[in-house]
Amino acid sequence: MKLSFASDYNNGVHPALLKLLTETNGSQSESYGFDEWSESARAKIREACQAPDAYISFLTGGTQTNSTLLSAILKPYQGAICPTTGHIAVHEAGAVEITGHKVITLPAHDAKLDAGELERYLSDFFADPESEHCVWPGAVYISFPTEYGTIYSAAEISRIFEICRHYGLKLYIDGARLGYGLAAKGNDVTLPFLAAHCDCFYIGGTKVGALCGEALVFPKGDQPEHFFSMVKQRGALLAKSRLAGVQFDALFTDGLYFQIGAHAIEMAAELKEILSEAGFRFYNFSPTNQQFVIIPDKRVRELLPKVEFSVWGKYDEQSSICRFVTSWATTTEELSRLRGILL
Amino acid sequence: MKLSFASDYNNGVHPALLKLLTETNGSQSESYGFDEWSESARAKIREACQAPDAYISFLTGGTQTNSTLLSAILKPYQGAICPTTGHIAVHEAGAVEITGHKVITLPAHDAKLDAGELERYLSDFFADPESEHCVWPGAVYISFPTEYGTIYSAAEISRIFEICRHYGLKLYIDGARLGYGLAAKGNDVTLPFLAAHCDCFYIGGTKVGALCGEALVFPKGDQPEHFFSMVKQRGALLAKSRLAGVQFDALFTDGLYFQIGAHAIEMAAELKEILSEAGFRFYNFSPTNQQFVIIPDKRVRELLPKVEFSVWGKYDEQSSICRFVTSWATTTEELSRLRGILL
Amino acid sequence: MKLSFASDYNNGVHPALLKLLTETNGSQSESYGFDEWSESARAKIREACQAPDAYISFLTGGTQTNSTLLSAILKPYQGAICPTTGHIAVHEAGAVEITGHKVITLPAHDAKLDAGELERYLSDFFADPESEHCVWPGAVYISFPTEYGTIYSAAEISRIFEICRHYGLKLYIDGARLGYGLAAKGNDVTLPFLAAHCDCFYIGGTKVGALCGEALVFPKGDQPEHFFSMVKQRGALLAKSRLAGVQFDALFTDGLYFQIGAHAIEMAAELKEILSEAGFRFYNFSPTNQQFVIIPDKRVRELLPKVEFSVWGKYDEQSSICRFVTSWATTTEELSRLRGILL
Amino acid sequence: MKLSFASDYNNGVHPALLKLLTETNGSQSESYGFDEWSESARAKIREACQAPDAYISFLTGGTQTNSTLLSAILKPYQGAICPTTGHIAVHEAGAVEITGHKVITLPAHDAKLDAGELERYLSDFFADPESEHCVWPGAVYISFPTEYGTIYSAAEISRIFEICRHYGLKLYIDGARLGYGLAAKGNDVTLPFLAAHCDCFYIGGTKVGALCGEALVFPKGDQPEHFFSMVKQRGALLAKSRLAGVQFDALFTDGLYFQIGAHAIEMAAELKEILSEAGFRFYNFSPTNQQFVIIPDKRVRELLPKVEFSVWGKYDEQSSICRFVTSWATTTEELSRLRGILL
Repeated sequence: MKLSFASDYNNGVHPALLKLLTETNGSQSESYGFDEWSESARAKIREACQAPDAYISFLTGGTQTNSTLLSAILKPYQGAICPTTGHIAVHEAGAVEITGHKVITLPAHDAKLDAGELERYLSDFFADPESEHCVWPGAVYISFPTEYGTIYSAAEISRIFEICRHYGLKLYIDGARLGYGLAAKGNDVTLPFLAAHCDCFYIGGTKVGALCGEALVFPKGDQPEHFFSMVKQRGALLAKSRLAGVQFDALFTDGLYFQIGAHAIEMAAELKEILSEAGFRFYNFSPTNQQFVIIPDKRVRELLPKVEFSVWGKYDEQSSICRFVTSWATTTEELSRLRGILL
Repeated sequence: MKLSFASDYNNGVHPALLKLLTETNGSQSESYGFDEWSESARAKIREACQAPDAYISFLTGGTQTNSTLLSAILKPYQGAICPTTGHIAVHEAGAVEITGHKVITLPAHDAKLDAGELERYLSDFFADPESEHCVWPGAVYISFPTEYGTIYSAAEISRIFEICRHYGLKLYIDGARLGYGLAAKGNDVTLPFLAAHCDCFYIGGTKVGALCGEALVFPKGDQPEHFFSMVKQRGALLAKSRLAGVQFDALFTDGLYFQIGAHAIEMAAELKEILSEAGFRFYNFSPTNQQFVIIPDKRVRELLPKVEFSVWGKYDEQSSICRFVTSWATTTEELSRLRGILL
Repeated sequence: MKLSFASDYNNGVHPALLKLLTETNGSQSESYGFDEWSESARAKIREACQAPDAYISFLTGGTQTNSTLLSAILKPYQGAICPTTGHIAVHEAGAVEITGHKVITLPAHDAKLDAGELERYLSDFFADPESEHCVWPGAVYISFPTEYGTIYSAAEISRIFEICRHYGLKLYIDGARLGYGLAAKGNDVTLPFLAAHCDCFYIGGTKVGALCGEALVFPKGDQPEHFFSMVKQRGALLAKSRLAGVQFDALFTDGLYFQIGAHAIEMAAELKEILSEAGFRFYNFSPTNQQFVIIPDKRVRELLPKVEFSVWGKYDEQSSICRFVTSWATTTEELSRLRGILL
Repeated sequence: MKLSFASDYNNGVHPALLKLLTETNGSQSESYGFDEWSESARAKIREACQAPDAYISFLTGGTQTNSTLLSAILKPYQGAICPTTGHIAVHEAGAVEITGHKVITLPAHDAKLDAGELERYLSDFFADPESEHCVWPGAVYISFPTEYGTIYSAAEISRIFEICRHYGLKLYIDGARLGYGLAAKGNDVTLPFLAAHCDCFYIGGTKVGALCGEALVFPKGDQPEHFFSMVKQRGALLAKSRLAGVQFDALFTDGLYFQIGAHAIEMAAELKEILSEAGFRFYNFSPTNQQFVIIPDKRVRELLPKVEFSVWGKYDEQSSICRFVTSWATTTEELSRLRGILL
């Protein structure tokens, strides 16, 4: 098998999840989210978030979760603000726009929204009478960690949330790789913190050990009316909801979700060393499981037959931005093989 | 565990699928449908359909598949025709309408579209100059088997397809329970027949043994351009596509899909006997795994604590239409328990 | 010029409106609805409706008004109920569906919704837990007068409004030909009554003497937030809003709107006599300006070169339903010519 | 009446149009675009464009025209490219997004798209396999003149059209103020040139002397199938189409459209002189009827009670970008009054 650091979704499912899927397979259950494992998983997530009133819905993938949520919370005349690098602005094939809503981009700084710029944008927008001819900002979308592996500090999220509340916007946080952000060195954001500092966020399963599944959390239990019907309408309702329920039940048993995160971050630390020793310049500073380095195109061509990684875009005429990713499944043996190839 | 005939999606996954999921779990793979199991499953489905050029896409659920497909093949000014009982007209929370397309209903006869009525509707529509002010029919949606367990004959499908081609409409067949239709006594429809007599259909996985997954088949390989992007856009693209790939690979290995169908039909035959002996009148004649009987409301209330089934609607002031369903997982032991309760 | 009873929108503009358009043409004005004539027209409409708090928006046409309004008041998971003959269900090319909402049809009785059937539908819908998988009814759409010229009594509207309020639905009334309904013999509905018995309605201009323009009225001033932006978004905002403002100002000066209605109804009474004397059977009883008669197809072919009218559909194999329409512009001279042709 | 240079849509209708509206008012006519004046106007526009096969549709406003056209020509997976200053990206309240399509912005240079940047964007996009996860560019939208009064040269449009054809995109040109662009000093674009160098464009009426109305032109007669139904569906079909037909007939009789343009440009030349003499710095160089100057905020506050103009946005902390506009109706007398106020 060729060595791969291409993504955190090219492995199967974490063994603990597979074990529970197997053990529970013989039982019959309710469907559409009312199965016992979904209920159990919800209880555990509520506890982990210290959000006893949270409403939690399990969807299958990230793009689906983002467009279902945003179309449910935005009014017809509203759009969602995000940094130019936001997943919804770039890599979701227009999944928000097909629901009739504009994605309004503000500059990205290390793939993050700047609170000051956000404040200025909103302050100007709401002050200008001409805004009635424009798309009204109704929500802010940010990712934790971001699409480039960076993380917001608790203070940054807190400030953005404050601005959102001041202007009547909802704050929604995409946690596709949340586990890897929470485990990052220097991170001061926790699940309870998130639950208290946004209107809605999702805990990514697909990229953090599950086969599929994202847990969308409304910490205050203030989900839009008939959100269930909207999930169904967007084709995001699992008939056999046990598939997601069982996996999240396992992920939130005995801290597995956090262990997965910690492991991947440990592996990422080694990965960084190797990439650094190989003489690659880092494109940015990422404390999470995605590492971006600049590699001469000639070297890229030499390496790709030996190890898989993602070519993320041109850096300049002679080199590319390349992404290497660790996950719950990354082993020290794989890192040794990488070291062998690069050094 | 309470006895349940409530649905064909309250059991886990068929053991053969779980086995393959487990065996292949250690391997890394491509994602987004390019994994080796998805490729293998496609090859096997193409062979089973005798459709060597078929384009096959794996989605997670039925509602999602229907709305993704219909929104991809309809022009902005078109809608989809279906019988009044059609799933897209009733039980998908408006999943077609949110894509901007009308569901145009024609009368249902045993939950089926009548070819003659369809022909008359289209003939009138296309002859009337006023139609420019109306929604243009662009596709016909039928289910095989239908939402009430009935099946179309090969001749009926053939005739509907002919009409569709004559008027330039696409024919799309929802096969959420296809396996149970194919195995029905008296059925003369086969996978190769379907592949040759419609523009697109899907082979249901979720209700026929999988945890999730539907295989959408364009038999002639004439899927809409960039269909992949449209699947992504609708939030229907699995990152870890192995989840669907592995399951369909197993379903189409050694005829498992057909065996599952045959088993459920055998169980349904016994179920029918039991329901009949219990003195219930059948709401309609269903040769497949869903059986609809009329039960006095008082009796419904007595039975529900002992056995789960679905109350499908009022039949009259004193009785209800009730649905009992078998599946790959139904056992003769369960039927014996039902017999004990009912007789 | 060939004699025509084909529609109430094939004449130009009522002379009084043209006069005011001409007189005011030299002035500069605000745009987008803030011009002085729009303001004046609003004041006059509020007075005519005895609705001092009414919010009034002028749009250009009926289909536009219906889809803009419905998409603004419906939640994403809701649809609009209307009788099968409703304009939005038949003749608007899917203008509601493109906004993502289903049109839910109930049987039409003389083109009207039956309050009892509506009540039963809603009562069943809201009682059924399965409804979470369906489109939620969010509004009721009826037309006054209907697409077949019939009218609701005040008691009927009152009852429908009561039901709507009981179930939390909005009642919206399409008044494309409102002027002709208000003037109908036997009608007991007035503008103040309408304003008090629905959530929103529009006063049709295009078919009642204007070149274009419909006045959408929220009698209680409870229009959806940022409705202006949604009108703009739907392409329904007139830059030179004076066009609609001036015309509605004239229509609501000195009771012109009601005089136009009365005249057309007087002409329709004569028209009915002529059609009756010609031996045509009436398709239904219409007290307004649209008259529907059944004419043998052979006779239709003979007549059409001499007088224009609309062939509305087949009645049976040998005859058609034909529509004859009067308007503000119909003259006794035209009726004499028709008499000469038919008798 | 307060002096106003606020917009080119705050005057009434050009007298020649009013005259023809009045003269033709007594006649009955076909509706929905089939009236004799619409037909006549189409013939004259075809001739003016030297496009004998052109399909021409009259809609009421610019936002409506843009969203109707773009939603009709884009495939579900496509978006429209425009410069960041494009009207559809900024001032249409999301009218394109509600049709399900993304507006993809590229940098604006003098409010114009740069052909080289467009080429690079498309070349990169179509080369990148990851693009399947993104919105596909399907059309380019540019305005002539632009939202800031600037104009493209014939060579620039030609180059953009070439690039569009190379990559399979449609080129659509928003001509809300086309008359003023065609008359601009230094302009080398003509109607026949436009007709030969884009897939679709519209000739603006509302801002060039009409009460409402835009003529959408498909020069090669290759409009999307059932475009009529899509216009209806978007609420953009005028029942009394004579309103648009008569006005465009007058506009294209004896070169009136071009005279209107020439007059406004002449007035704009004087306006520029006055603004210059008043010591205002020009924000950009505009050869058309919109002039943008930078005025200290204090001065803005002093001037607004005396003369209306638009405050377009902040220039810096102490001054604003202000817009002064001329039109068919601007008189030398008004300019004298302005001179009196400013100097």
